[in-house]
Amino acid sequence: MRPIERLVVIGVGLIGGSFALALKAAGGVGHVVGVGRSRANLDRALALGAIDEAAADAGAAAEGADLVLVATPIGAMAEVFASIALHLPANAVVTDGGSTKQSVIAAARAGLGSRIKAFVPAHPVAGSDASGARAATAELYRGREVIVTPLPENPPEAVARVRWAWQQCGARVTEMQPVDHDAVLAAVSHLPHLLAYAFMQELAARADAAGVLAHAGTGLRDFTRLAAGKPEIWRDICLANRTALLGELRRFQDTLAGVGALLEDGDGVALERGFDAARAARLAWLVGQER
Amino acid sequence: MRPIERLVVIGVGLIGGSFALALKAAGGVGHVVGVGRSRANLDRALALGAIDEAAADAGAAAEGADLVLVATPIGAMAEVFASIALHLPANAVVTDGGSTKQSVIAAARAGLGSRIKAFVPAHPVAGSDASGARAATAELYRGREVIVTPLPENPPEAVARVRWAWQQCGARVTEMQPVDHDAVLAAVSHLPHLLAYAFMQELAARADAAGVLAHAGTGLRDFTRLAAGKPEIWRDICLANRTALLGELRRFQDTLAGVGALLEDGDGVALERGFDAARAARLAWLVGQER
Repeated sequence: MRPIERLVVIGVGLIGGSFALALKAAGGVGHVVGVGRSRANLDRALALGAIDEAAADAGAAAEGADLVLVATPIGAMAEVFASIALHLPANAVVTDGGSTKQSVIAAARAGLGSRIKAFVPAHPVAGSDASGARAATAELYRGREVIVTPLPENPPEAVARVRWAWQQCGARVTEMQPVDHDAVLAAVSHLPHLLAYAFMQELAARADAAGVLAHAGTGLRDFTRLAAGKPEIWRDICLANRTALLGELRRFQDTLAGVGALLEDGDGVALERGFDAARAARLAWLVGQER
Repeated sequence: MRPIERLVVIGVGLIGGSFALALKAAGGVGHVVGVGRSRANLDRALALGAIDEAAADAGAAAEGADLVLVATPIGAMAEVFASIALHLPANAVVTDGGSTKQSVIAAARAGLGSRIKAFVPAHPVAGSDASGARAATAELYRGREVIVTPLPENPPEAVARVRWAWQQCGARVTEMQPVDHDAVLAAVSHLPHLLAYAFMQELAARADAAGVLAHAGTGLRDFTRLAAGKPEIWRDICLANRTALLGELRRFQDTLAGVGALLEDGDGVALERGFDAARAARLAWLVGQER
């Protein structure tokens, strides 16, 4: 497939910046325009070589674009879609890097209107506790999954272009229905984030929080790493995928109540059986990933 | 302080094996006897140089010991204490590596009887998702905290010997009351383990567990690392510290119910405020650790 001549990245943070760097490293893109509200962040992206040009106006930047990646927090995407709709060239393809898909698709339908067929939703399942252009790296997506959730309106060549771009970044591209995507990600990503935040929040609310945390080890550091994510990003994700996330939360609360009852009863046999099942499932998952 | 001539390590796993390796590396010990039920594990400890001699009988091994480290799962400690009580030399000091302290102290009082003054309880706050002698390393305790919870009966020189041994391992030795230790560890270690197990257990119970987990990223790997701990060890810890752990679990359940209510109400402002507090507390903790 021919390289992308003009890529416009709206929101040049970890996700957008890494996409641009990876595509550049692969020779998959010519000119990259970065759009954002923070001039300091765009300057870092320029210095890093992630973008060739910085712009403040998404609409003007979108003119002449072959591919537009919307990589802002998902709560800001509705506005972005509306601002570019009238400026997109006829053959432009638009994609996104949002962690939820149904809400982003709804925002795209509202904002892009009749141009919706140009929008191929995608979610790179990759991240870090770092954020901003300074955290971007050409390697972020190597070996990681990118889930594309095409719309019925998408022409095959638009989907192919988005798949190709992510493959250039070294990613493993899969396809899912948007509703399935949101259900699965609620279970394996959104709920764990909510739990890590809730856990740290509960500790933080104590008068002796620092004294208690002083005795924590490396295990807690790993367990709470998800609570290092940017609060506004995760607020948006939780609200956007609220229904699925609430369902997962209820399931977990039920499981936790069951574990609490075993503990109260001192039922070591059943506790250990649960721990065994958990450990075995984790091991099977990690072994499967290595294949 | 003069080196330990004869160290007896009962339970030569990650904790016991690493203690022996670290003391040897520091020149703090002469002869090390390892006691365990698994001959294969003791052979690995011998091959690794963690122990100089393998024994099956704890009582016989304890004869002539300067220092005995009981590093079995805490559920097995009562039996160990009883088996060594009549064999300990007059000046021997006994310590342990258990993750709970009140229950271990109760087991020691019952098992050691009039020799209880020789027992200086301790908890190295260090670990790994690996286990067994093969995972042992002389570096495990470097820079880590070891919490000593002395008994009123302990002569100062017994406490000093245990502190000295852990310092030889590179550890930072602190002192706490047993009840405070158990309360703090329930919050920063035992509950997170229980949550990680419960989370994986809930996923594992699904018909489509593997399919769901196939879409998980590196964040989930970190979040669930505590669920890689040995089930029998964590069953023992949960049961031994049941009261404090149940208290922590109830607190967390309340927090989670609150977060669920905010989510249900779509209260993004309050959700973000909680995420912010969590993230800030985690950052302050990690910055404090680096000092």
